Amino acid sequence: MVSGKLFGVGTGPGDPELLTLKAISAIASADVVAYFAKRGNPSNARAIVAEYLRPDHVEEALDYPVTTEIDRRENGYKMQIEAFYAEAADRIAIHLDAGRTVAVLSEGDPLFYGSYMHLHLRLAPLYDTEVIPGITAMSGCWSDAGLPLVQGDDILTILPGTLDRDELARRLGNTEGAVIMKLGRNLPKVRAALADAGRLNNAVYVERGTTAAGRSIALSDKRDDEAPYFSLILVPGWSARP
Amino acid sequence: MVSGKLFGVGTGPGDPELLTLKAISAIASADVVAYFAKRGNPSNARAIVAEYLRPDHVEEALDYPVTTEIDRRENGYKMQIEAFYAEAADRIAIHLDAGRTVAVLSEGDPLFYGSYMHLHLRLAPLYDTEVIPGITAMSGCWSDAGLPLVQGDDILTILPGTLDRDELARRLGNTEGAVIMKLGRNLPKVRAALADAGRLNNAVYVERGTTAAGRSIALSDKRDDEAPYFSLILVPGWSARP
Repeated sequence: MVSGKLFGVGTGPGDPELLTLKAISAIASADVVAYFAKRGNPSNARAIVAEYLRPDHVEEALDYPVTTEIDRRENGYKMQIEAFYAEAADRIAIHLDAGRTVAVLSEGDPLFYGSYMHLHLRLAPLYDTEVIPGITAMSGCWSDAGLPLVQGDDILTILPGTLDRDELARRLGNTEGAVIMKLGRNLPKVRAALADAGRLNNAVYVERGTTAAGRSIALSDKRDDEAPYFSLILVPGWSARP
Repeated sequence: MVSGKLFGVGTGPGDPELLTLKAISAIASADVVAYFAKRGNPSNARAIVAEYLRPDHVEEALDYPVTTEIDRRENGYKMQIEAFYAEAADRIAIHLDAGRTVAVLSEGDPLFYGSYMHLHLRLAPLYDTEVIPGITAMSGCWSDAGLPLVQGDDILTILPGTLDRDELARRLGNTEGAVIMKLGRNLPKVRAALADAGRLNNAVYVERGTTAAGRSIALSDKRDDEAPYFSLILVPGWSARP
C-alpha cells in the first residue's frame, strides 16, 4: 500500500476569502482534516475552512494539553508539550500509513510560529509532504489597518511580547519596522518598552485583524490594557521616506 | 459622480494557485488593472493573474524610471523615484475620479516592501481603499523548502542584503530566525557575514520560490555567487527546540 500525502495548509488569519486556491484544493483532495485547538474550544482554523468540509472528511482534533499560560521555560511544560506533539504525529502517521491524504490546518502560515511545524519536523522526512503557505496574521493586520511597515532597505523585526522590557526597548530602538506578537498580559510592559524606545506615538494596536470583530487604533488612544493573545502591535519604519 | 474604489491586491510570490479568493474577486470587480514593471520587462504580478484578465480591463503599466541598480542613498535617485510615484498616483487618481475601480497588483504582499505602498500613502487618504494581503515571497520560499524558521518566543529579523558585512553579522548573531532579502551582487558579502556569525551551516538559499523554476539548496553547497535579485536566504532559529 502506498502512503498518503501530508499537506500543511495555511488558512490565513481569519477571513475565509483570504484562503488561497491551493489551500482549498488541498482540503478537497484530503481524506482527513486535522487541526490544533485548545481543549473545549473550537478550532479557529477549522472555522475558517468550514464551508469546504464534507461529511465524508474524517476530522482529527489535536487538543493541546495545556490551556493556561504557564511558564514556557519550565521543564515540565516542555516535556508535556513535546509528548503531545509526538502523539499528534503518531495519530497523523496512522492515516498516512493507511494511504489516506491528510490536510493539517494551520491558522496564518504553517511554518511561521505555527504548531504544524512540530508535525512537519517529525513527518516530512518519512512521507510525501507539501506545505501551502498562508497569509500571516501580521499581513492581515497591517492590510486591515492600511499601514505600510517597511520598504526599500528597511529592517523588520518580529518580537514576542514575552521579552523583558529592556530587551524589547533595545530592539525597538534598533530597527525600522517592528511587529510585536503575543501581547496578552504583556501589554503594559510592551507599552512601557515602546515609550522607552521613543516609538509609542507611531505604534498601532490591531485586534482580530481581517475578521468582522477586527479593529485597529493608535496604541496611545487605547485606554485599557486588555489584549487577546492573538492581537498585535505594528510599528511602522518608513516615516522619513518619500 | 462617485469616485471609484482603490484595491491594493497582493498576488503572492509566483504560483497562481497561491492567489486568494479575495484577490481574484477584486480583479473581477475592477475596471482598471495597474502594475509596476521595469521598462521593457513583463510584470511578474500581471503574469500571476493573467488568466483573470479580461479584454475589457483597462491596463495601466507603471514603468519604473530606473532599471540599473544605482545607489539608493543618492539624492538624484530619490528625487527621480519620488517624482515617478507621484506621477503614477496621478494616473490612478484620474481613473478613480472618473468612478472607475482600480486594482493595483503587487507581487507578494502589498504593504511588505511593495511599491504599492507609495500609491497607498498618496491615495488612501482621498479615496475608498482596501488592501488585500498576499502570500509573501519569504512564506512561499520557506514553504517550498519545508523549512520552519521560528516558533514560540523566537525573534525573526528580516534583513536587506544591502547592509554592510559587520552590521549583517552582528544582527545575524543576535536573532533566532532570519531572512535575508535583496541578494543580487550582495551574496558574497552576505555569505561572509553568515560565516562571521557562525550561521553559514544552517543557511538555505532559495531562488524563485513557488514557481516551476524554483529551487532551494544549503547555501554551503552553492558553489557560485550568482543570485537573482528576488532570491532569499533563510536562517532557521528553532534548532535547539522540540
